[in-house]
Amino acid sequence: MTARYEVRFSGTGGQGVVLAGIILAEAAGLHGGQYVVQTVSYGPQVRGGMSSAEVVISERPIDYPKPIRLDLLVPFTQEACHQAAGLMKEDGIILLDPDLVSETPEGWVASVPLTRLAVEATGRVQMANIVALGAISRLCPLVDEASMLDAAKGRAPKGLFEAFERALEAGGRFAEEIRGKIPFEKAPTPED
Amino acid sequence: MTARYEVRFSGTGGQGVVLAGIILAEAAGLHGGQYVVQTVSYGPQVRGGMSSAEVVISERPIDYPKPIRLDLLVPFTQEACHQAAGLMKEDGIILLDPDLVSETPEGWVASVPLTRLAVEATGRVQMANIVALGAISRLCPLVDEASMLDAAKGRAPKGLFEAFERALEAGGRFAEEIRGKIPFEKAPTPED
Repeated sequence: MTARYEVRFSGTGGQGVVLAGIILAEAAGLHGGQYVVQTVSYGPQVRGGMSSAEVVISERPIDYPKPIRLDLLVPFTQEACHQAAGLMKEDGIILLDPDLVSETPEGWVASVPLTRLAVEATGRVQMANIVALGAISRLCPLVDEASMLDAAKGRAPKGLFEAFERALEAGGRFAEEIRGKIPFEKAPTPED
Repeated sequence: MTARYEVRFSGTGGQGVVLAGIILAEAAGLHGGQYVVQTVSYGPQVRGGMSSAEVVISERPIDYPKPIRLDLLVPFTQEACHQAAGLMKEDGIILLDPDLVSETPEGWVASVPLTRLAVEATGRVQMANIVALGAISRLCPLVDEASMLDAAKGRAPKGLFEAFERALEAGGRFAEEIRGKIPFEKAPTPED
């Protein structure tokens, strides 16, 4: 039923948005057998600033390689959240880390303490992106946990295999808890 | 003068085509201030098989994010070379490693012993992709050596900074030697 699923990770350098995009793409494409296009764009305007990784997953060959309307957004900064909020599908999910983004945009939002879960599971703030992938493996119908784990292990730096696995599990458990309630919170819109 | 430059790295898993695409994209985009779109595609047909990373670099904002005609191709397998040979610009360059690709396709080809240079410079076969980036930093007018080094260091696994640097230098030196002669070899075409 889900023909096409579009994800964007967006943040600043060092937050691992590019790595998150690659792991999701390889989970769905190499390990999951779906059609996938993963894109990263840079421009002079984002120098030292924001970077975004976008992943389009589809059961059928992909004609247009960029997202049209996002099913899922992971914004690692307030600005990233503002910029993409208007690109969401009506029933899209924003995985919003309240420690990184305080102003909730219009649209469906799932509050997931990515950074806190990363620290609890691995002791590393920088694993918030991997926690997000764990959550996505339970929320996106076109990728499964086993494929995500395979892909993450394939890209984990030496010595961090187990930390990656724990981060995925933490994100997955949290998503499982809230899955029944998603979309569970809608910010007030101007019409409300 | 060069408005748009299109590169494809193509090979099988483990040859580092995705990493090469990311480093080139970050060299030109984050460090070089150009507009860049980097794309990786997967599909059921490439499962366990070929993967390609494509990078479009431009002085102006990029409308169409995928390559139209390749300026530069780095094929890490014979099949990758065959598939992409028809996508080359008339004056495009194929960085062909004679240890990986034996049949020379139609089009301009620069013979660069990527694997041998990688082993000589670093002792590692897997650094052929980084050697290719060193060559590209001298051949592509929209990216420079300093940006390539910055980007490579940003993505080098711990403990491999110096090996990455030596691999870049080896590729750069080789490209410098042959640059005056590129396009220096054209395979016979059916019309010849």
